Formats: sequence, structure tokens, C-alpha cells
Amino acid sequence: MSIASSQTDDSRHDAALEALRALLGDRLTTTLPMREAHGRDESWHHVVPPDAVAFATSTEEVAAIMRICARHHLPVIPYGTGTSLEGHLSALKGGLSLDLSRMDQVIRVNTSDLDVQVQAGVTRRALNHYLRDTGLFFPIDPGADASLGGMAATRASGTNAVRYGTMRENVLNLTAVMADGSIVRTAQRARKSSAGYDLTRLLVGSEGTLGIITELTLRLYGVPEAISSGSVSFDNFEGAINAVIETIQCGLPVARIEFLDEVQVDACNHYSHLSLPVSPLLLLEFHGTSNAVIEQAERFGEIAAAHGGGAFTWATKTEDRNQLWEARHNALYAALALKPGKKGMITDVCVPISRLADAIAETKTDLAASSITATMVGHVGDGNFHLIMLVDPASEAELAEAALLHDRLVGRALAMEGTCTGEHGIGEGKIKFMEAEHGAGLQVMRAIKQALDPLNILNPGKILPS
Amino acid sequence: MSIASSQTDDSRHDAALEALRALLGDRLTTTLPMREAHGRDESWHHVVPPDAVAFATSTEEVAAIMRICARHHLPVIPYGTGTSLEGHLSALKGGLSLDLSRMDQVIRVNTSDLDVQVQAGVTRRALNHYLRDTGLFFPIDPGADASLGGMAATRASGTNAVRYGTMRENVLNLTAVMADGSIVRTAQRARKSSAGYDLTRLLVGSEGTLGIITELTLRLYGVPEAISSGSVSFDNFEGAINAVIETIQCGLPVARIEFLDEVQVDACNHYSHLSLPVSPLLLLEFHGTSNAVIEQAERFGEIAAAHGGGAFTWATKTEDRNQLWEARHNALYAALALKPGKKGMITDVCVPISRLADAIAETKTDLAASSITATMVGHVGDGNFHLIMLVDPASEAELAEAALLHDRLVGRALAMEGTCTGEHGIGEGKIKFMEAEHGAGLQVMRAIKQALDPLNILNPGKILPS
Repeated sequence: MSIASSQTDDSRHDAALEALRALLGDRLTTTLPMREAHGRDESWHHVVPPDAVAFATSTEEVAAIMRICARHHLPVIPYGTGTSLEGHLSALKGGLSLDLSRMDQVIRVNTSDLDVQVQAGVTRRALNHYLRDTGLFFPIDPGADASLGGMAATRASGTNAVRYGTMRENVLNLTAVMADGSIVRTAQRARKSSAGYDLTRLLVGSEGTLGIITELTLRLYGVPEAISSGSVSFDNFEGAINAVIETIQCGLPVARIEFLDEVQVDACNHYSHLSLPVSPLLLLEFHGTSNAVIEQAERFGEIAAAHGGGAFTWATKTEDRNQLWEARHNALYAALALKPGKKGMITDVCVPISRLADAIAETKTDLAASSITATMVGHVGDGNFHLIMLVDPASEAELAEAALLHDRLVGRALAMEGTCTGEHGIGEGKIKFMEAEHGAGLQVMRAIKQALDPLNILNPGKILPS
Repeated sequence: MSIASSQTDDSRHDAALEALRALLGDRLTTTLPMREAHGRDESWHHVVPPDAVAFATSTEEVAAIMRICARHHLPVIPYGTGTSLEGHLSALKGGLSLDLSRMDQVIRVNTSDLDVQVQAGVTRRALNHYLRDTGLFFPIDPGADASLGGMAATRASGTNAVRYGTMRENVLNLTAVMADGSIVRTAQRARKSSAGYDLTRLLVGSEGTLGIITELTLRLYGVPEAISSGSVSFDNFEGAINAVIETIQCGLPVARIEFLDEVQVDACNHYSHLSLPVSPLLLLEFHGTSNAVIEQAERFGEIAAAHGGGAFTWATKTEDRNQLWEARHNALYAALALKPGKKGMITDVCVPISRLADAIAETKTDLAASSITATMVGHVGDGNFHLIMLVDPASEAELAEAALLHDRLVGRALAMEGTCTGEHGIGEGKIKFMEAEHGAGLQVMRAIKQALDPLNILNPGKILPS
């Protein structure tokens, strides 16, 4: 029996914080405001603040912190920008919030290889700002200006995924600190490899439960020669969704194809001072050569017209385009502004595209029969859509009604061979759906977690139901 | 202590075969020719035949076989078409070759979702033949007519990967039988998901060491409106490779861009009755709309000319195009025909594209100073190239000299942030490079293997050095 395991929890906890303070000095803090700030995300979840917050500045330091925490069995919850949505940051078993935001260095841009190596705390906007003179960009865009480490940890995607894929496809390798403090580089920088198990993809989407991502190498893309954006309104959502389905099925390489229902459009009009027709809307973006962009837009115009779409409104000027996408990015805040004081319970199902119209229709019917106000937005080119259900976190009845709608929506998505979460992750909030979605696969996930984090100190209580 | 664990190895082995025979009848065989046929691949490796061969016809039957083997600790080696290249099929610890070639059903084509569900034994050519009237195709093409289960297990790629990705990007989900006989469906059919650990990508590339892939859902693509192929010869390899590098760096979406050195071109001329100039060659293919294909080809023509390329020779007729790619696919057999009786020791490094010219130049220099005859071919758009070194498996000296060249080549690739294997996998043949390539990551892989296959009965002795 080790000395550590004969300690009480309290004394072990104190010893851990003492060792961390010796390592980090004033980069360890236990003040209530700082703890509360790190126990907050952008969701409706009641988040439990951690016992302390550490600010790390290097992979080696994260490893040293992890070794201390392992010795004292102190849970560690990695923190990027706090923009997650499923209670990922909640210190369910106490422990340390490990803030990586000071690891914000772009280490190396390899323009010739179209990749970049960054520390985990670099945000997607900071990266693209850094890249502005290179002719390259990183496309993954979940809306929030999240950290790239956090985006990898939740397997984020967003508006550009229909063209460029998700974090799954765009991380070439990553450096992670494992539960025992060992530092692992998951792969080389080559574009492809068959050398053993795919540790990169195992860590992408693992939400801090298998290792702490400290550095990443990401794929970059050339800034397209031409970009055009526009919007088209439809009389009803069926027309909009069927236009999307046909667009995807015919292989048109749209860069973005986003759906907003009439409730969301109305909210955006108010929040972002727009004057869009209050009816179902598709926002689109095309990337390519000047000719290709025109060809794509014309082809899409024909498809939209065939499904009852109105005139395509172009946003050719950069500022108009930015205003349109800024409004889309602020959809959550616009929705929240509909009912001040309420929080957003956000669903995130993703279904095969052939089932998308059915999934949305049944969901709309369900919603209409409830008392919940909700907007609908979607990365519909992927079959992924969100409800933002406005709930009062203090109202048990409202939470219960929204949760029931959510349960029914996930049940519907699973029956259509879809998933409970396309891009937000499981965290604490969707843990109840894991058994239904994965069946026997859940045991495989548990075995992996047990093997790589036997003390269960890496973001415990997330992803896997106990 | 269980009864099984008190048995001797021999009696356990006999009991396992007896139980398998009761389950499978004459679909279990122990005849020497059949065992030898299943202990053969297309490489130079001395492969150890299994003790018996089983032909499975369903996932449930694979599960029943696996449960028997687990009970009796009998190793299981999945078998598709026997076209692997690194001794993957060798029964290093005896055991059962589990032949999945009779699981050859296309289960469901979802044309609207651009995906298809197949049993693991369907080969890539059989699938594309099946799809011929749908307007869709499956692009991944490793040359050999491998089974799709085997291609997933080795994370195969090939000539089209530069445009369409590898098996990593093109498997939506798979069904696998785990070491305890449980059946796991790794994911739903949605295009993306953030629901827990990525078991799909964990099994892709695991070479039968973590589970037996029995079914897969694969992404499909629309057959391009226009396809054009062609070839261009260069005075020296530097020109050819620099043309490739510039093509990739400027984002030209070539569907294929293949390199053959002058030795390989000469071999192909003889084997495939062609009359290509005996000098370094690039073979290309462009996919897209009629306009896009012309635009791409013109742009590439300019790049090739700037790097000393000769005239671009078009293969516009389908039969000419097929002849060209057939010759490329037969490159291995063409190389082997240069020295009848010898076998091919095939290297498979992949480096970041910016290092490709250096990697090839240093390799050519190394080779010139040796007594080994070798051809060079490459999926150079990915930074991936092969040497086919012709060796006499009975000559210790020749094997040693080739192995030394291979070691030096891999060392060079790793120093350039590349990998020892872009697409062939580790098997038995590249196991010695795992430590150098993965360092601490190797311990993570071992922990996963131990967790998912504690008896070490799934293709033991592959991927992980003991």
C-alpha cells in the first residue's frame, strides 16, 4: 500500500494543492470568483466549480501538474475558453480546472505542407488572424471563438464542415499528457499513416477524459480565389430542407449551407438588426475559382427554385458577407434575447441526410404541442440541426418538459440511424443517451477509459455513464 | 481457476477445433494446402500457416467462433483476400485463420445518403461492379482487389487518396466482433458525431488485433461528370517531384498523381506492353465537370512545363485510360518480372510533401551504392512512395542488405516527420520501427490492446513489439 492511498481524501487534497502551489506559484488560485468563472459554460447546466484553477504554460508543465494530481488522486478538468455546451467543465468530483488559455503560441506554420502546429490554447480566430498574410486558413468554425484544443477535445465542427470536414478530419497529430503524466505525440506530420492504432482520432472527441491535449498540428487550406455568400427564403421548411438534400445528393461542393427556421430568423432580425423575411431561410457560401463559384451558385439557384425558394440574395461585398455570418454565429445569443433570463437547452442530433426532412417535421410537430419556445438552426448539409429551447433553469417543470422533448428527439434520431450529438459532445448533459446509441460499444469505451485512466481522474463523470 | 486454464495447450487446441467443427461442419478445414493458402500473402515474408481455416458466413457466426476461441485461448487471424504485404496473416502463435471471403453481400445501398453497407468480404471491385448503375462509386483503390474489411483493417489508401482520402476518412461505421465475442456497431450512419470515443477510427488500421471487422458502412461519391487521364515524362525525378509538390501546394484537386521512376517505367513497358519513354513519369487523373477537368489539366500542364516536363499525353478514351491504370496497378508484378524467382521487399514511407524531393533523392543515392535492384513508385500527392526491392528470400545476405536500406529509409522518413508506413500497415514486417515512430504512444497502444484483448488471441504478434 502506498503512502498516498492511506491518506484521507482531505489531507490528500491539501497535499496536492500544496505541491501544485510549489510548482506554479500564483498561477494556482483558489479564489471563489476564479473557480466560479471556470465552472461556467454557455449552457443551462448547473456547473460545479473546481477546487482550484491552474494556469499552465507548457506541455512539460501540464505533465508535472498531471503527475502531482495522479499521485494525490486529484481530478483534472482541462479548460480552454469555457464555450462548451454540455457541462463538460463541471467538477463533479471536485479537483483542478487546468486552464490552457495561456498556451496560446502558434509554434510553426508549414506553408509548403499546408499545416500548422499550435498550442492548445490558441483560438480559431487568433489562428486565422495569425495566418492572414499566408494565403492559408483553418476552416473549422463552431461559431464561438473556441480554443483549438477544446475544439479537438469535443470533435467540433460547425458551418464549414459540409465542405472541409470536422476536427476529426483536420487534426494531423496532437500532443497529449496522459493520466500518468506521460507525454504522447500521437502521430507524425505526414498526411497519412498506417502505423498502428489511431491515437489522434481516439483523443479527438474524448473531452479530456483520456488525456489533456496540449499541442496540435492542423490541416490548412488555401484561401479560395473567390467566395460568395447569399441567402434564400422559402415558404416552408420542407422546401428549404429538400433543396439542401438535393444539393448534397448531387455532390455540389457548397462550403456552407445553413438552415434557420422562421423563429430564429425573427430573433436574428431583432438581435443583429437585419430585415430578412420572417420565413425559413438558407444561408449559403461557395468557395472556388471565380468560374466555379458562379457555376455552383447557378446550379444551387435552380435547385432552390425547384423547391419553392425565393430570389437568391447575394452578399458579394465582404462586409455584407461578414454581417450575414456574424448574425448566424450570434444565433444562440439572438435566441436567448427572445426570453431574457432564460437559458438555452440545445439539442444537437445529426441524421443521414435522407431522413432530415422527416426528422425536422416530427420535431416541429412535437414542439408545437409543447409550451416551450424554441428556435431551430442547422448545419443541414451534414444532417445536423439544433433546437435552442429557452428554459428557466429554476423551473423544474420547464426543465422536465424540455428534457422530454429532447429525449423524444434523440429517440427519433437514433431510430433514423442518427446520433444524439453531431458536434457538441456528451459531457454530462447527454450521458443518458450513450447506452441507447452505443449498446455493446459502451463497454469497449469503458475498457479504454479504465486502461488509460485507471484512477478516473481525467474529467471524471463525463461521456461514460457510471 | 477455470477448467480451461488447467488444460494443456494441446488438449485445449483439440477441444477448440472440435467445438469449431461442431459449429461449422465442413466450413472448418485443416488440410495442408488450405492452411498454406491462408498463410500466404504477396510479400517476401516467410508466413507461418495457421492450424485450421474457418469460413464464416455471418457476423453472428464470427461471434460464435470468437467465443469458442476465447474459451480455449486459440488465436484468430482474420483473412480477406490475402493481398496484404507485411506478414499480417502469419499464425505466429498458431491458431485459426478466419476467412471472411464468403461474407460477400452488399447489404444496402443508400443512394440518397451516398453510402453503402457491405459485409467485410466484398472486394472493392465487386462493390464498384455492383454500383455500376447507381451513378455512385467507392474511390479507395490500393491496386489489389482487396476485401473492404481487409482494407479497413490495414487503413489502406492508394492512388485516389490524394483526392478522396483513405479508409480512415471513408468508413462511416463498422460492425466488429471483439475478443470476447461481443458484437459492436461502432457508430450510427450519420455523417458526423461527437458521441464518445471514435471506435470506428480505432478499429480502422488495427489489423485484426482489436476486433474482427464483419460489416462496414462506406462513403460513396458521384461518378464524376468528366474524367481525364494522362501521363508526362520528365528528364529527371527532381522535376517530376517538384511538379507534384507545386500541384499540391496550389490546391489543385487532382484525383490521382502517381510517380514511377525510370526502372519501374521500363518494367511496366515490358510487362504491360507499353512504349512509354524510359524516364521518370507522372500519371495523372482529373475528376470534375467538363470545364473543371479542362481547367485543372491546363493548370497542371503549366506546372509540369515549368519543371521540365515533356508533352502531356492524353488518354481520353476509356480503354486507353484503363490500360494506363492497369499498368500502374500491375507495377508490383512488373517489378517482380524483372528478376524471376525473387520476391518484393516493399517499403512504404510517407513524408510531409515539402520533404518529398529530399527523401527520394537521398534514397536514390543510398540505393545506387547498394547491389539491390529496386523500382520506385509513389502516391506522391500524399508524400507516400514505395521501393520494390527485389530479393531472394533464401539469401541471408540479400535480405540483410535490403533490410539495412529499409532501416535507413525509415530513419530518414522519421527524421523528416514522416511515417514508416503510409498505407500497408505494420503487420510483422515493420514492427521494429514502432518504438522509434511512436515513443510513449506505444505504451498507450499496448494498454488499449491489453484492455480489449487480454488473452492476446486477436492476431497476436502484429503491430505491437513484444
